Amino acid sequence: MRNVLIIGAGRSASSLIKYLLEKSESENLHLTIGDLSLELAQRKTKNHKNATAIALDIHNQEQRGEEIRKADIVISMLPAHMHLEVAKDCIAFKKHMVTASYISDAMQDLDAAAKENNLVFMNEVGLDPGIDHMSAMKILDEIRHLGGKIILFESFCGGLVAPESDNNLWNYKFTWAPRNVVLAGQGGAAKFIQEGTYKYIPYHKLFRRTEFLEVEGYGRFEGYANRDSLKYRSVYGLDDALTVFRGTIRRVGYSKAWDMFVQLGMTDDTYIIDDSENMSYRGFVNLFLPYHATDSVEIKLRHQLKIDQDDVMWDKLVELDLFNPNKTIGLKNATPAQILEKILTDSWSLQPEDKDMIVMYHKFGYELNGERKQIDSTMVCIGDDQTYTAMAKTVGLPVAMATLQILNGNIKTPGVQLPIKKEVYEPILKELEQYGVIFHEKEVPYKGYN
Amino acid sequence: MRNVLIIGAGRSASSLIKYLLEKSESENLHLTIGDLSLELAQRKTKNHKNATAIALDIHNQEQRGEEIRKADIVISMLPAHMHLEVAKDCIAFKKHMVTASYISDAMQDLDAAAKENNLVFMNEVGLDPGIDHMSAMKILDEIRHLGGKIILFESFCGGLVAPESDNNLWNYKFTWAPRNVVLAGQGGAAKFIQEGTYKYIPYHKLFRRTEFLEVEGYGRFEGYANRDSLKYRSVYGLDDALTVFRGTIRRVGYSKAWDMFVQLGMTDDTYIIDDSENMSYRGFVNLFLPYHATDSVEIKLRHQLKIDQDDVMWDKLVELDLFNPNKTIGLKNATPAQILEKILTDSWSLQPEDKDMIVMYHKFGYELNGERKQIDSTMVCIGDDQTYTAMAKTVGLPVAMATLQILNGNIKTPGVQLPIKKEVYEPILKELEQYGVIFHEKEVPYKGYN
Repeated sequence: MRNVLIIGAGRSASSLIKYLLEKSESENLHLTIGDLSLELAQRKTKNHKNATAIALDIHNQEQRGEEIRKADIVISMLPAHMHLEVAKDCIAFKKHMVTASYISDAMQDLDAAAKENNLVFMNEVGLDPGIDHMSAMKILDEIRHLGGKIILFESFCGGLVAPESDNNLWNYKFTWAPRNVVLAGQGGAAKFIQEGTYKYIPYHKLFRRTEFLEVEGYGRFEGYANRDSLKYRSVYGLDDALTVFRGTIRRVGYSKAWDMFVQLGMTDDTYIIDDSENMSYRGFVNLFLPYHATDSVEIKLRHQLKIDQDDVMWDKLVELDLFNPNKTIGLKNATPAQILEKILTDSWSLQPEDKDMIVMYHKFGYELNGERKQIDSTMVCIGDDQTYTAMAKTVGLPVAMATLQILNGNIKTPGVQLPIKKEVYEPILKELEQYGVIFHEKEVPYKGYN
Repeated sequence: MRNVLIIGAGRSASSLIKYLLEKSESENLHLTIGDLSLELAQRKTKNHKNATAIALDIHNQEQRGEEIRKADIVISMLPAHMHLEVAKDCIAFKKHMVTASYISDAMQDLDAAAKENNLVFMNEVGLDPGIDHMSAMKILDEIRHLGGKIILFESFCGGLVAPESDNNLWNYKFTWAPRNVVLAGQGGAAKFIQEGTYKYIPYHKLFRRTEFLEVEGYGRFEGYANRDSLKYRSVYGLDDALTVFRGTIRRVGYSKAWDMFVQLGMTDDTYIIDDSENMSYRGFVNLFLPYHATDSVEIKLRHQLKIDQDDVMWDKLVELDLFNPNKTIGLKNATPAQILEKILTDSWSLQPEDKDMIVMYHKFGYELNGERKQIDSTMVCIGDDQTYTAMAKTVGLPVAMATLQILNGNIKTPGVQLPIKKEVYEPILKELEQYGVIFHEKEVPYKGYN
């Protein structure tokens, strides 16, 4: 038996564990699933004979070391900042390691030690980062293999609600950490490059500079710019590309409506609202509007944001029950962003029967034999239910597949890695198709950035 | 002779030194004026027999201690963060101290030691903070003395260009640190209280929520909210006031035009522009606008900001030469805010014959005998020239006057102080009138916040 230690049994581990358990017979695997909550770990093993659930506190150095020593490979599904102690033990006990997280500087610092010990430390092998790297590199490599020169790369990803569960005016529900949605885009201007020129969008304009994306069978979406589109420019070999843009996908109209919160100041996470606990939703809205002795909160907001009476933007706010004077926030010492998250969670939580959806969209512009061409590649994945969500599948399955490939010696380049090599992305993308994660590629006319 | 040590001989020390030199005979004063630049210190002493200019490096502990030991009182006109070593020496050598700076936590920590040694550490006794405290407390005390209850306090201050030198479309020139003007309002939402309700304005809306101020003989001004209007609420005894608001004064139309820079993202100081050195003014503007193959920077900006062809907002931008493709920024690794400062400095620098102007406006709403009343108090001060500017006078004169009052034993409450006690503000405000710093008070109908 080969021992796989999985640390962290939360939402994103469901499909990962299911996949490895299904392969456990044919692949001779035994899983140890450790979580702070033994009950959670047990629920994920489902009494499978090839799995053991344990209560694991990664801050308990002795226990952590002991479990890692027994494993052949370690998967860390912990929050990104908690990988490091695990990674150091993996070096000490000479174990491969897999994560779905961005490579931190501290993780990168282990590269030499991993190489020295011939260990694969595969990171960023979930959805975003993960499937985005793999699906992009596949086509970039194909174009380059034909002798093409990449001139444009745009890449978008979004976690949304599936069409069959899409029943609110925002066409959006929280399918992942709500806090990240509320804080999206904050912390600096969005930076990218368009037709050879750097471009910057300040936060308070971010949601008003979207572009449309059409996905066959699913209709129209929109994308707003990520903070740093240029992070992987060199890694992808795009230093000479004229346009490099990465964005987040929403349904059309979401960003324009979200911008109302930005304009009002409700997404601010830098200060605390006095007596937030006993404040009403209506009182919260009024904080951001000028005082008037008799004008209503409604008319002041309409005037401030210039919303016509018959504008659906207005209905979107009303749908959130934002003007309710009797609904109390109930959060102590909360920031505007925390209060907004609370208000949105009332309306945007997935219901038990709801399904989520992942949408990814890449555009590749290139020159080949003097001609300018473009390939668009799209992927839509719908969740099965609230356990095997599209998010859990797209994050967990590539992690699981990479783990098995490493165990089987198919992925063997040592060191701290991203899944951008053909030996990695080719088998994983192929296998993902069996699980419904399928990219549709088509040639389209090259239009440049538009 | 009583020895006064003045540390820092920069712009704000001119009127201060002039005042003390004029009094040096009758008051038996000898001034030692220390600055890193001996030449600057010498220029300010003008070979006056009662003054000695010295080169003084406050980081030289020995020299600093020696000079402080020889003094009877020390005035620090250093940047706020540099006062502390001086203040500690003043405790050690038992000397009074005067500054025009906000009291830092570190300065406040010296309160007990100052009291123990019976030393007056008078701070915030310049213009803003300084004259604002004194002129506000005078009327607040008067109203309370009559039995009135304060219900509204609004206070505005601004450094502007004098009417006779006001010859650009922005009605503004830099009369003080340009960097502070470019960064004004950043770092968090503006917070104040209006009619009993807390209000918050996010930075990107700050310059669109102004109020008008009419000053007899000088026309109309506008005010935008300061970051924290509530800082002195308790100090002024305004915890029960329904409205407490502090703001910055500009000429009408400035804020709306300034908001263009905010909306574009040009005031951002958090990231560096690639190759800023060789970029043109036009290229800088284009960074913040969407790419288009043929549309001009001008039309893209007009569209983005919705500026009509005949709107003076447009002329304000053109006046700054913002669209010039041949003017190079010439700053290495500059942030947008630094580049904007450079561009504005081209247009907004005071010319040799230009004069500056300080405007202060307070509103006091109160209840007395069941009636609601209001007093408005305004002050306008015009600079004499580029040395004895309105800013130098209003910052330096109260510092000088407080120094003399302390030396003469008229101000004697020991400890770390603000000029909010009658023993301080009464003689200083009275004497300031001789120097043209005159507050005009008038009863106006109480309208509440409007």
